[in-house]
Formats: sequence, structure tokens, C-alpha cells
Amino acid sequence: MTDFYERSTILHQQLRGKIGVVNKIPIESQDDLAIAYTPGVARPCQLIAEDPACARTLTIKRNTVAVVSDGSAVLGLGNIGALAAIPVMEGKALLFKEFANIDAWPICLDTQDADEIVQTVRLIAPVFGGINLEDIAAPRCFEVEQRLQDLGIPVFHDDQHGTAIVLLAALVNSARVLGRDPRDMTVVVSGAGAAGTAIAKLLMGQEVDPDVSVPVKDVVVCDSKGAIHQGREDLSPEKHALLAFTNKSDHRGSLHDVLEGVDVFIGVSKANLLSADDVRRMGADPVILAMANPEPEIMPDEAQRGGAAIVGTGRSDFPNQVNNVLVFPGIFRGALDAGAGAIDGKMKMAAVHALADSVGEPTRDAILPAPLDRRVAPKIAEAVRQAAIDGKG
Amino acid sequence: MTDFYERSTILHQQLRGKIGVVNKIPIESQDDLAIAYTPGVARPCQLIAEDPACARTLTIKRNTVAVVSDGSAVLGLGNIGALAAIPVMEGKALLFKEFANIDAWPICLDTQDADEIVQTVRLIAPVFGGINLEDIAAPRCFEVEQRLQDLGIPVFHDDQHGTAIVLLAALVNSARVLGRDPRDMTVVVSGAGAAGTAIAKLLMGQEVDPDVSVPVKDVVVCDSKGAIHQGREDLSPEKHALLAFTNKSDHRGSLHDVLEGVDVFIGVSKANLLSADDVRRMGADPVILAMANPEPEIMPDEAQRGGAAIVGTGRSDFPNQVNNVLVFPGIFRGALDAGAGAIDGKMKMAAVHALADSVGEPTRDAILPAPLDRRVAPKIAEAVRQAAIDGKG
Repeated sequence: MTDFYERSTILHQQLRGKIGVVNKIPIESQDDLAIAYTPGVARPCQLIAEDPACARTLTIKRNTVAVVSDGSAVLGLGNIGALAAIPVMEGKALLFKEFANIDAWPICLDTQDADEIVQTVRLIAPVFGGINLEDIAAPRCFEVEQRLQDLGIPVFHDDQHGTAIVLLAALVNSARVLGRDPRDMTVVVSGAGAAGTAIAKLLMGQEVDPDVSVPVKDVVVCDSKGAIHQGREDLSPEKHALLAFTNKSDHRGSLHDVLEGVDVFIGVSKANLLSADDVRRMGADPVILAMANPEPEIMPDEAQRGGAAIVGTGRSDFPNQVNNVLVFPGIFRGALDAGAGAIDGKMKMAAVHALADSVGEPTRDAILPAPLDRRVAPKIAEAVRQAAIDGKG
Repeated sequence: MTDFYERSTILHQQLRGKIGVVNKIPIESQDDLAIAYTPGVARPCQLIAEDPACARTLTIKRNTVAVVSDGSAVLGLGNIGALAAIPVMEGKALLFKEFANIDAWPICLDTQDADEIVQTVRLIAPVFGGINLEDIAAPRCFEVEQRLQDLGIPVFHDDQHGTAIVLLAALVNSARVLGRDPRDMTVVVSGAGAAGTAIAKLLMGQEVDPDVSVPVKDVVVCDSKGAIHQGREDLSPEKHALLAFTNKSDHRGSLHDVLEGVDVFIGVSKANLLSADDVRRMGADPVILAMANPEPEIMPDEAQRGGAAIVGTGRSDFPNQVNNVLVFPGIFRGALDAGAGAIDGKMKMAAVHALADSVGEPTRDAILPAPLDRRVAPKIAEAVRQAAIDGKG
């Protein structure tokens, strides 16, 4: 992989920024200036002052998303701070543009205090039609996102929900390939941070009406000390809250212990946690979705030695790449197009189904579309837009 | 002018935003994604974490300016708030791109509290190479700008300094046309807000070394109650501070009274304050720079009836348009290219001289270049860049 890193550095040095601002109208005459700027611009300003809703018809707000990070949990790098997070947030903005024609702008915050993050996002919100929270460490990310749900525009922590949506779509299509019903399947999630928590919630049908959710039979979430169960006295409030809807049979023990007989392993943790023997102890035709990057929790060949029926990872050099670039462009496109004030559970499940259905006939080596398949975002956008409009009605 | 307003509304409805985000690199393959985003992007992030200065060589920071407003003093519209200010801030961003290839992004703040504005700008600063404060009411604009001077990137309130720079350049070239020395000339400034205060400071050589400044003989600043003089007991702290360097002879009375024998009138106030008779009572060959928009303090034909030698306004339909679009793109371009931490007095005076000198042979009807003259910004940028580098050495 070293080659990627070196080439990336050279590219960043050459470009000095992967995105830029572009004018939609040239300024070639005094008349152009008078219409786009002063004095003409006074009229659109007045119209918005009279009716704030006009901001969506007269300004960039209709199509803008702020990519907001405090730099506390960047990729696999951890807490590298706001300045060092810029290349990732630029990359995210680039993908928003590329896949959904959204004008996204990086906002890297020189603070890691939840109150200050919440306050700053509130104060800069007028120009934006949505807020994509990114690479903010748990548990702060939960609090920040929750407190901003009244902002009037969608506030969506992609590391939580984008990841949960793409993984549930992968699980739905894995079940389809194996001829099984997700409702009969048990899941172990390795990792109890932002992603692991959101996955558990979405898989167990939390935050969504039963009529649109596809809850699995049970989820056991593991952190570095093993299963999160009723007997643990070292749990944070966030981890403790998971027990309200996970680990119904109160499984205890290490990650290896609780894999016994389970149908699906989802890893959002770290490299090389599992061996072929672990997979052998799982149920029949086990599904392995090992997302740790760049080294997954178990390599595909090792998982297959253990009898895995389907293996997905975050990597592009193996089959079944599970990447949330499949989700966030379309989900924000749909929310913006609907003028939605939030991205709710119904919109998330609409994205899950649209993504799963975008694969005509899933197979063991193609449970999801390729991350660069440009047909996916418009399909998700339309489903999410419709769900948002239905929700309003 | 109605036509401008109607056409502007139609244009804004069609465009739904005058600017957008553009990708500098296409994402057409997995390899593109791996280099521009994960996993490759981790290396540039690490380099910045190790050396923050790398943010200028590896990210958009080198070329970005935030156009920050609280919507409290927008054009002639006044306090219309953050949302209604968006079309103006988009327009400003558009001009930054058009004239200086700067990637500027509107930040409209949902607060008019100085502490909150200062704090928010501090927290969002990492992504930006400069901050252009815009349409923030006096006296708050002074406090906000002052408190942000330690931010490490230029923070420049264009309504103050851009206006002051273009007006001093207009005055310098007016003196050149009339064969006079600015140092012998007296000035009355009508308007004691953000612009009037900054003009008085720049014209009197405040904040700059004597070797680069061109101080005029005296400036009398007038507010709505007439001259600001030692006997006034109703002065705000900001207006009182003007007396330390203006109105040396303690002129008292109304705007009309203090114009007696004065060489230059600068208006940054409101329409139709002066008549031909007022101009007649000024000194020989008076210079009138009447910037109120859209109706100036005196119309050019009326000023000429009073014997004005040179008349400038903010309007494009008369000769001598004085417009700070001549200044801000070049001054920020120069500051960004120098990696300057602030825009100091020397850089401002470098902009004044570069702008004045950009007119080969000024005449009574052409004291400044046309606002759309694309040769101006690069000249100012180079002069400002050099002044910034000299200042560092």
C-alpha cells in the first residue's frame, strides 16, 4: 500500500487543495456586476428577509453541505487535530460533488469541546442545507449529533449512520444470496464506538418504525474487553444503553467466545482479531464483514479457510468492498431535494433498501454495487427524497 | 435602476446560488479514490500533524478566504440578518474568484454578539488562509477585527479598509491631476461608521510608518449631528478616539459649515446631503467623492454646477466609479501568496500606491481604473506580497 501513500502526497503537493470554488456566471461587464452584485443583489436579499424560505430558491443553501470535523478520530490516525484533518474533509467534499453534485465545504474546528462544536455549527448553519459530521470521536459524536437535531437542516454523522446503512444493505443482500431471512440471523459486532453503536441500533430496528425496519434476531456488541453484557460494571453510559436492545440472551465472554453459532460477524474495530478457527465455530454459511482499514479483522483468504460463505471488507483489492461512499452522497442529495429538516429512521431504511435493491441479482462476490457505480446515488436519493416527503405528509 | 433589481431576482432564481464547488481531480477509478481519499490521504494528514506549516502546501488553506458576515449592515439594507445576507456574501466570493482566483466561501453567522463572532471565526479558521469580514455594523466591526488580529491569518474588514484604500488612491490621483500635494489638502468625511473611521485613519497616516504614508493636512469627520469636535459630549468611544488625530483646528458646526474652504469631500453616508452651493463654498478646484449607494450625497451634475473639479461616485453610470472591488481581490491575493499573518499598514499603503499607479495618466474623468480592469488585482497583489515579505524581513 506504500505506493498509494507516496502518490497521494505528490498529488496533494501538486494540487494544493483537491477542491475549489467556481463561479456560475462570468462577470464581463458592468451590467453583469450590477445584476450579480450591487445594486441588483439587494432585491434577493430583501425577498429572503421577508420570507426565510426564499433562501432555498435564491442562494447556494439549496445545495450546500458543511463537512464538519474536530479532527479527533480521523481515519485510522486518531486524534490528529483540525488542521491535519483537512485533506480528509476535502476528500469528502470531493466525493459529495462527484457522486451527488452537492457543493460541500470543509469546516475543521479548532476545538474538541462538545459545547463549542454544537454552538459553532449552529452559528454557521445559515449558508448550509445540511451538516455532515465526520471523524468526531465517540462518545462526543453522539452528544453533538443529538443536540443538533433541532437545527432545521439534516445533521448526520456519517461514521455512524453511513456505515450502518451500507452494512445493513450488505447484510440484507447476503441473506438474499444465502436464501435466509435477516430476522432469523444473529450478529456479533466488534467495536463499540461511533460505527458499532449505530450499526447495533439500525440492525435492531431502533429509531425506525417496525413496518420499515428489518431487525435481525439479536446483536451482541463487543468492545476490547469482550461482550457488552448485563454483568459488566465498567460500561460507559453509551455502552450501557446498548443493553436495552442488544444481547437479549446475555451472552458473556470474549469476542471469540460469543462468536459460537453466530450467523454474521461485523468488524469496525482493528486488524487481525479473528482466525479461521473463529469462523469455523460460527453458524452454517457465516457472513464476515470485516471493515477495519487498511488491515481487516480477518483477511478474506483466512475467513474462507474457516468456511465463510460471504466475506466483505473495506478494501478495493478484494471482492465485496463495503464503503460508505455508496451512501452519503445519495442520502444528502435526497434530503436536500426534499428540503428535509432531518434524516430520520425512515429515510435511513429507504437508503438501505435502495442500495440493496440497486444490485439486480446479488452473488457471493457481489453483494453490493461497486463504490464508483454512479447509478447508485441517484437511486438512493430518490428513495430518500420520497421517504422524506412521505414523512412530512 | 428597477430593471437591475428585477433581472437580479430572475438570475438568482435561475442559478440558485452564484458559486459552486468544483473538483480539481476526477474520480474515475478505484485507484483515483485510493489516492485522493482513503487510504492514501492518511499520509498528507500525517505530514500536517507533524508540521502544521504543511497545511499550506497540501490543502486548500493556501488559497481560501472566508467571507464572514453577521448580516447587521448589509449594503444599504441595514440589519437584515444572516440568511438574507447570503446573496451578498456569494457575490463577494464570486468576485474573489473572478479577479484573484481565490476560493472564497460565505460564512453567514446566526449571531450579532461580538464574543460569539470572534469565537466562531477562531474555531473555523483552520481551513482558511484569510478572513474577509463583511457588512458587520459599527462599532462591533472594530472590536471583532481588532480581537482577531492574533489569529495568524489576515483578518480584514473590507467595508473599512477596502473602502479607505480605494478612496485614498482616488485622492492621490485627483491631487496628481490637479497638480497638488495631498499633504497640503484638507478633507471632510461625511459618515462616522466603519468606512468613515477607516478613511480618517488611513488619510491621516495612522497605523502606518511616515515613510510609506501620504497623510493629508487635516480631516474633519462628520456624523449626522455635524463635525466631530472637542466640544461634543455625545460621542461614542470610537468617535471620540478620532479626535486624537482629526480636526486639528477644532472646526465646529454642521457638515455644511465645515465644508468652507475644504479641498476634498468624501461621502460614506447617505443620499442628497449636499447642493451646488455647498460645493461653491469649498476651496478652489474641489474634489467630490460621494459614495452613498445607489444615490450619492450629491449627483455629479449638481456638483459640477457648484464648480467641482473632479467628481467620483460608487456608480457605474457616471465617470470615476470608486469601487472596492478594485482592492480586496488583489490585497488578499498578495497576502495569501506571502503567507502573511495579517494585513498591516504597509501592505495597505502598498495597495494604495499600486492602485493609483495602475492608471498611467489619470485625468479628471479617469482617476481610477475601471472596476472590471483585470490588470489591477495582479499589480496590487504583487505590491502587497512584496510589502508583506519586506515586513517579515
